[in-house]
Amino acid sequence: MKLLVLNSGSSSIKYKLYNGNNGALEAIAEGIAERVGIGSSFIKHKVDGKDKIKVEIDLSDHEKAINEILKLLVDEKVGILKTVEDITGVGHRVVHGGEDFTESALVTDKVIKAIEDNSVLAPLHNPANLLGIRAIARVLPEVPQTAVFDTAIHQTMPKKAFMYALPKEMYESHKIRRYGFHGTSHGYVSQKAAEILGKPLESLKLITCHIGNGISITAFKDGVSVDTSMGLTPLEGVVMGTRAGDMDPYIPLYIMKTLNMTADEVNDVMNKKGGMLALSGYSDMRDVESRYENGDKVCTDAIDVYSYRIQKYIGAYTAAMGGVDAIIFTAGVGEKSPIVRGKVLENFSYLGLHLDMEANEKNATVLTTPDSKVKALVVPTDEELVIATDTLKIIEGK
Amino acid sequence: MKLLVLNSGSSSIKYKLYNGNNGALEAIAEGIAERVGIGSSFIKHKVDGKDKIKVEIDLSDHEKAINEILKLLVDEKVGILKTVEDITGVGHRVVHGGEDFTESALVTDKVIKAIEDNSVLAPLHNPANLLGIRAIARVLPEVPQTAVFDTAIHQTMPKKAFMYALPKEMYESHKIRRYGFHGTSHGYVSQKAAEILGKPLESLKLITCHIGNGISITAFKDGVSVDTSMGLTPLEGVVMGTRAGDMDPYIPLYIMKTLNMTADEVNDVMNKKGGMLALSGYSDMRDVESRYENGDKVCTDAIDVYSYRIQKYIGAYTAAMGGVDAIIFTAGVGEKSPIVRGKVLENFSYLGLHLDMEANEKNATVLTTPDSKVKALVVPTDEELVIATDTLKIIEGK
Repeated sequence: MKLLVLNSGSSSIKYKLYNGNNGALEAIAEGIAERVGIGSSFIKHKVDGKDKIKVEIDLSDHEKAINEILKLLVDEKVGILKTVEDITGVGHRVVHGGEDFTESALVTDKVIKAIEDNSVLAPLHNPANLLGIRAIARVLPEVPQTAVFDTAIHQTMPKKAFMYALPKEMYESHKIRRYGFHGTSHGYVSQKAAEILGKPLESLKLITCHIGNGISITAFKDGVSVDTSMGLTPLEGVVMGTRAGDMDPYIPLYIMKTLNMTADEVNDVMNKKGGMLALSGYSDMRDVESRYENGDKVCTDAIDVYSYRIQKYIGAYTAAMGGVDAIIFTAGVGEKSPIVRGKVLENFSYLGLHLDMEANEKNATVLTTPDSKVKALVVPTDEELVIATDTLKIIEGK
Repeated sequence: MKLLVLNSGSSSIKYKLYNGNNGALEAIAEGIAERVGIGSSFIKHKVDGKDKIKVEIDLSDHEKAINEILKLLVDEKVGILKTVEDITGVGHRVVHGGEDFTESALVTDKVIKAIEDNSVLAPLHNPANLLGIRAIARVLPEVPQTAVFDTAIHQTMPKKAFMYALPKEMYESHKIRRYGFHGTSHGYVSQKAAEILGKPLESLKLITCHIGNGISITAFKDGVSVDTSMGLTPLEGVVMGTRAGDMDPYIPLYIMKTLNMTADEVNDVMNKKGGMLALSGYSDMRDVESRYENGDKVCTDAIDVYSYRIQKYIGAYTAAMGGVDAIIFTAGVGEKSPIVRGKVLENFSYLGLHLDMEANEKNATVLTTPDSKVKALVVPTDEELVIATDTLKIIEGK
């Protein structure tokens, strides 16, 4: 059984092919179609045990791109499938499920309608996700598709965590509340952490820190997400690559007035020109860190703001849960940056958390000393695997 | 030596007269002029040992109001001064000192100019504060005046606490940063708490919770403010009487688009129609609490959101300081609400904080049990006394 996982953005499609064998899933090919619909497009494609290749090819729209991806997957030289009919299911990452989805779903007309309805909450993401779903529906009309939502896992949050203090019609009629994102990642690493700690997830208080270009922090108690740093949109929370994160909510209006900008321009500033890019000049933490290591003052200050905000969320969620058993780091920066983890964790000896400097330097799984009351872990995330797993479950249950 | 303290709002002037005797300050009269410039105006006036009176009188502007206040202070029946010449100094509360003021200042043309310049950051408050300063300058031209800023004490915050992750011109050219407010209150209760704990403020990690109609939480370390919940304006932070506090910064723009509102209308919603008013229907916590006690679900949910947000700030600042020695409650709700304090403090046993329920019910000074590692205290605030004290110091040093 072969399962294809797709993450469709507005001008790119990431894909990963899994082989399902007695419930075990193994990734056997992956790649990305870039610059879809905007010219100079190409596909980077890799099959296990073969060389990575780059194919420059016109990808005028998502359907064309998906057709070309499928051609590569069945290609005699660089492919791995005999025929596209071998694909028994396609799982899609969908960013915003609103309050309609508390778990992954088989794609039906009703599900498509709900994803469309929630596009108002994620205008850049949901329409792009739907392009992928519709392209597959045309190219592989017989194959069942699933939608796996970034927001679904956070639907367990209590009201006190998801309500903003705004007039009630803002929530009731306009859906304005905290949703949270990166749900597949937080869910996956919380489960893995419970396995590493050798305790049921339900018995643990965990704080998962997904620190990539986007960043969100989630609190897990009684086995479910009870709070998370991203909000109505993925802008809220800590400082990210280009996203500003938390600020006085008067600021966007103040910028409009003071700098004579439109709402869209301010949104662009907050989402694409803020964050580490604004503070340090670089949105990629590897650039910031190499300058930090050379003693650059601006990058040092930027890393301080970045780490401090994460530290405060960890403190806040510890209070929210009345304690914490383990703090988990995942995603690009979380898995690979001893500098960021070291700065984030430097203040938690009051919780009985003691960092093992050497383990941290080596990106080890357990970052804390054996006597540490509160543990810190590195758990690599695998969002595609979650999507494939959910897809398999749904298809088998169909 | 007599000192007059004024808190001038756009349509009201609060006043308090102090007698200074060998450095000790004693309040001897106080009152408020209400509905200045908007008709049906009156003054409520009280002198120690005499009956409180209400005088209905036309107060067409701030100068007229101040003239009438001074008349009451020298009135044969209800006054306490022989002549207004007895007033040796007037201290004004000024909301926003921007980065220009790290402490209270003698009012000069330069200071007035700086307060004017910072009006852009507090358009409702600074101009009203200036009306009071200018009225006194005309009515009592020989008397020295001082300005005591809500923001000044927070100028000690490190960059990692006051920077927003926005393009640098936002800070450098447009002054967009965290300032913080309620500085006189936080400063006063932190000092008092240190006295109660019998340790120098410099040696303590304190979190002061000013919970009135406006609410802010401040972290004190090494004797100074290191972080505070209010930001560029008093909108940021926890849920307040009518202010929404923290939210995804995309929300104000989203409301503009979705509800077709102007920036000013959205600002009005966030500042005047949000907070407890939005969540419960009531902006006054006494109303919310009496309904909560009768089992009202909406008010119970509202108190949960309100307390939860305060709890998260306490957790965040504990992380920021690497621990906490005491949590201090002050202002209307903070001093008088066992319900709110009880809910805020219920989760902190992981810090070794143990609430003494009976002490909490009685609004006692020490709310925690004797064996509690982290203390919780109630310390009544006295912002006017801080203004009078600073005024005395400045006048004597002149």
